[in-house]
Amino acid sequence: MEDRLSASRTDVGGNFPRYSAAVQGFRNYWYPVMLGRNLRKRPRAVTLCGERMVLVRDQGRVYALHNRCPRCGVPLSAGRREAQGTLTCPHHGGAFDVQTGWLDGRLTGGPDSPSDGQARVATYPVEERAGLIWAYVGDEPRPPVERDMPRELLRPHTVVEGVISRKRGNWRYAAENGIDEGHVRYLHRRGFYTFFREIPAWTTLRMGPSADGDWLTRIVENVVWSDEYPELGRWPRSVPFWESRARGALEIGIRLPGWLRIQQHGWTSFEMYVPSDANHYLSGLLLCGQAQGLAAARFHAKYFLWYRWAYHGLFHNTDQWIIEQMEIPPERLFRPDASITAWRKLCDDEGRGEPIPAAPPAGGRTHEPVGVGGK
Amino acid sequence: MEDRLSASRTDVGGNFPRYSAAVQGFRNYWYPVMLGRNLRKRPRAVTLCGERMVLVRDQGRVYALHNRCPRCGVPLSAGRREAQGTLTCPHHGGAFDVQTGWLDGRLTGGPDSPSDGQARVATYPVEERAGLIWAYVGDEPRPPVERDMPRELLRPHTVVEGVISRKRGNWRYAAENGIDEGHVRYLHRRGFYTFFREIPAWTTLRMGPSADGDWLTRIVENVVWSDEYPELGRWPRSVPFWESRARGALEIGIRLPGWLRIQQHGWTSFEMYVPSDANHYLSGLLLCGQAQGLAAARFHAKYFLWYRWAYHGLFHNTDQWIIEQMEIPPERLFRPDASITAWRKLCDDEGRGEPIPAAPPAGGRTHEPVGVGGK
Amino acid sequence: MEDRLSASRTDVGGNFPRYSAAVQGFRNYWYPVMLGRNLRKRPRAVTLCGERMVLVRDQGRVYALHNRCPRCGVPLSAGRREAQGTLTCPHHGGAFDVQTGWLDGRLTGGPDSPSDGQARVATYPVEERAGLIWAYVGDEPRPPVERDMPRELLRPHTVVEGVISRKRGNWRYAAENGIDEGHVRYLHRRGFYTFFREIPAWTTLRMGPSADGDWLTRIVENVVWSDEYPELGRWPRSVPFWESRARGALEIGIRLPGWLRIQQHGWTSFEMYVPSDANHYLSGLLLCGQAQGLAAARFHAKYFLWYRWAYHGLFHNTDQWIIEQMEIPPERLFRPDASITAWRKLCDDEGRGEPIPAAPPAGGRTHEPVGVGGK
Repeated sequence: MEDRLSASRTDVGGNFPRYSAAVQGFRNYWYPVMLGRNLRKRPRAVTLCGERMVLVRDQGRVYALHNRCPRCGVPLSAGRREAQGTLTCPHHGGAFDVQTGWLDGRLTGGPDSPSDGQARVATYPVEERAGLIWAYVGDEPRPPVERDMPRELLRPHTVVEGVISRKRGNWRYAAENGIDEGHVRYLHRRGFYTFFREIPAWTTLRMGPSADGDWLTRIVENVVWSDEYPELGRWPRSVPFWESRARGALEIGIRLPGWLRIQQHGWTSFEMYVPSDANHYLSGLLLCGQAQGLAAARFHAKYFLWYRWAYHGLFHNTDQWIIEQMEIPPERLFRPDASITAWRKLCDDEGRGEPIPAAPPAGGRTHEPVGVGGK
Repeated sequence: MEDRLSASRTDVGGNFPRYSAAVQGFRNYWYPVMLGRNLRKRPRAVTLCGERMVLVRDQGRVYALHNRCPRCGVPLSAGRREAQGTLTCPHHGGAFDVQTGWLDGRLTGGPDSPSDGQARVATYPVEERAGLIWAYVGDEPRPPVERDMPRELLRPHTVVEGVISRKRGNWRYAAENGIDEGHVRYLHRRGFYTFFREIPAWTTLRMGPSADGDWLTRIVENVVWSDEYPELGRWPRSVPFWESRARGALEIGIRLPGWLRIQQHGWTSFEMYVPSDANHYLSGLLLCGQAQGLAAARFHAKYFLWYRWAYHGLFHNTDQWIIEQMEIPPERLFRPDASITAWRKLCDDEGRGEPIPAAPPAGGRTHEPVGVGGK
Repeated sequence: MEDRLSASRTDVGGNFPRYSAAVQGFRNYWYPVMLGRNLRKRPRAVTLCGERMVLVRDQGRVYALHNRCPRCGVPLSAGRREAQGTLTCPHHGGAFDVQTGWLDGRLTGGPDSPSDGQARVATYPVEERAGLIWAYVGDEPRPPVERDMPRELLRPHTVVEGVISRKRGNWRYAAENGIDEGHVRYLHRRGFYTFFREIPAWTTLRMGPSADGDWLTRIVENVVWSDEYPELGRWPRSVPFWESRARGALEIGIRLPGWLRIQQHGWTSFEMYVPSDANHYLSGLLLCGQAQGLAAARFHAKYFLWYRWAYHGLFHNTDQWIIEQMEIPPERLFRPDASITAWRKLCDDEGRGEPIPAAPPAGGRTHEPVGVGGK
């Protein structure tokens, strides 16, 4: 089952070797991993691109360390902070500098413990922006975090709501489901969130750049609300009186390393498909607008009263169910899947760093990330 | 654990290479997979001889397709039927002809979708007889389903009750437990179903054909109700006053591809050990008689009031527990196991099609059954 | 996950090849596996050093057989005793002599079953001493059980209380946690059991033999209750008024094949880390004193009212949590870990029999222990 979800998909339509290899994502990107407000005093564990991290907030700032005490492998995320600027392993009180990862001292070894300065855990660059914690996995020099943030998140008076959670399934299945035009027309047709909305039978589309150049967008060229199929008859046969042709999204686009942007009238919806390990991804669902004062309060209220459970809950649960059912290879794409092929090609051509393959099976791995060494 | 239940038993007593290889059964048989009344509007998934099928009822008739949409592997059993004669994938609305398996059209791709007629899922021959759905896994030309049906099921006024469910354990363990003479004398001695029945200490038996020639039967030659064992003393030591030497079964026989027939006075009990995957089998438990009108109503009533929970429930749960505990190889048979050896030899000599080995481990398999191709 | 807990730790500090190989312990030792009072009429299954055993009490004496009927692998621990001196398989009534393991007869095969005397299950030497059941895995001639029992258990008027239970984790992780000086100073600092006790910040220690020569003990040379750490400041910063410098243990020592002795004023605590399989150990926690009459009653009462839940419960649950978190290799020891390195060296130098490696993966194993053969 697990194997199924992480298949190293060597046969995706059209032959995209770098995308096929990127089981745990691409290196050299900033990935959003947690809502800032969810990281308080208690350290939190997160796995990003196969790297096990502990996120810790110290004097307001966020740091990320490899989540493994070098003595014998206990996760630092179960630890405390005995001194400012450090995170202490719960086992023997080894205190690691949250900024550098160096072992500042082991409380139970005494101040002159000869092992001080002899151990270090890897650190990861972290930034907190737009209410999100961003972590970087890759090589130096690293790009500024802003380069990997959608512009909407950088504007003044941006308000953001959403949820980030770990889900089963490989990140590529989730991303492909996101940019998939066809499934909206069928899978989501009977959902609660679209109850009042008439949904077209089919569309034609081509893929092209967004106006701001950052996104690969689906450009719908033709909308057919109902049609006559040679071997199947008319479909949909009728439209319930309560459905109406609501204004749809203005534009839907995808970008590396796994962002979907759905531009609505007045607000923007983002979906993030963040590689965790081979069989799991971090599903980020964000709503984003520009508002101040009362308008901002209204934005937050609408989110909690409606979007959180109807859109980020019910609607996306249907997608999640499909992502867990998918089983590739083999696959056999059809016309609307041009959006998926274009996304694969984008990854293959422009994926910034090296693709990260699946982790070696347990037993063969050392759990020691790159970057550990003596002072 | 799972491995234990599906061992490819290379050392079964006497060397039966075809039987040892038949981890997922023999090809070229009709297997019962479901009670007909349990298949209504909703498609149902079933795994038979390692083949994942979806059963669907359309205008009264039953069809079986490979349970995997060729686009990306979503199970068709989660789908709906948008047009008569088709089954529609829940993901993108690909509608497959239930009879031929051809993709009749993809609703979200439009009527002129160029991929039409380019994809197909495998189909499996299915028949509905005697209240059961029968599926065929194997080569053409296929035998008539009647050849694989016990005669009792083909008689006029046949009434059938029972249950088919998926259980843990390889089908061969279940079949061997069924024909095993010895375990009845000990394992079932203290069960609720046999509470009022005195059970012999031991018997001798030989195996021979049934009167109708279809079955390999246990012919009991000698019944000993209690005996003196040199190193163990008398056993059973005493018989409770409430036990009596009830009339036993008239005849117990087994046949390929995994049927047990227990002829009772006035009715017949069948057990079916249908290969599902290497670690599971479909356990079919049937009661069958000939009755009309009031007698038929009495048959159904007796089944639900007594046999269903006491015999198909409690009694067989004990067998199921043993099947899950078994762990072969190695094994070391004894005299009463002549029934098992004869059954193995029967399979080895007369198993109709090729033995079906265990499926390759996940990751190596393509999930694409034989028989998929272009129109 | 499981793999992590049983790593065959090839890189433990200092290179100890025999210890590294002893994934399932060392041969030629007596191991305590169960409290005697927990074995009554019902046979009990236990896995020791990778050997699956059934313990059975017959006429007061305890016997151990390989827990697998040779016919088809059903566990004998599910059986009954139809005749004195035998254990009967629940499947076909094969009765095995508990002393020799020979098949005395198969009830359902009749007294003259030709297979009698043709099958045998392995037996294991067992002794019951000091309220514990001891089993031996190894070669003959075997040492007397007394050689592997702590002397305290052999004294007159010894009273023993405790619990033996199967836990996740390799036995070596548990043993190293037991002798680990440093973790007491930090991991257990905030526990309920040590609530009123001030705990030192750090100590220095050396390892040396106990007075009676049986144990490798931690000899604390220096106790520092609070200290100034160059990069971390003072720690602990303050001592709550309710804590006091209680009398600690008199001496803590470890010995093969995995015993920890904690000598207290008036009583002794033992911890046993008994290899079960690669990923589990039997955790034995004992309290032991010398008392008679009212004093003995007081000992038992104190155990059930306090030690059982506070010490053997809460306190050791914290250790168990750490044992399940550990993940070696790699590891990087520090000064207080001299106790661990000394223990590893002890095992490497003095481990009596051969180290027992991890069992081959399921599928490759035959489940047939050494010692099975014809009469």
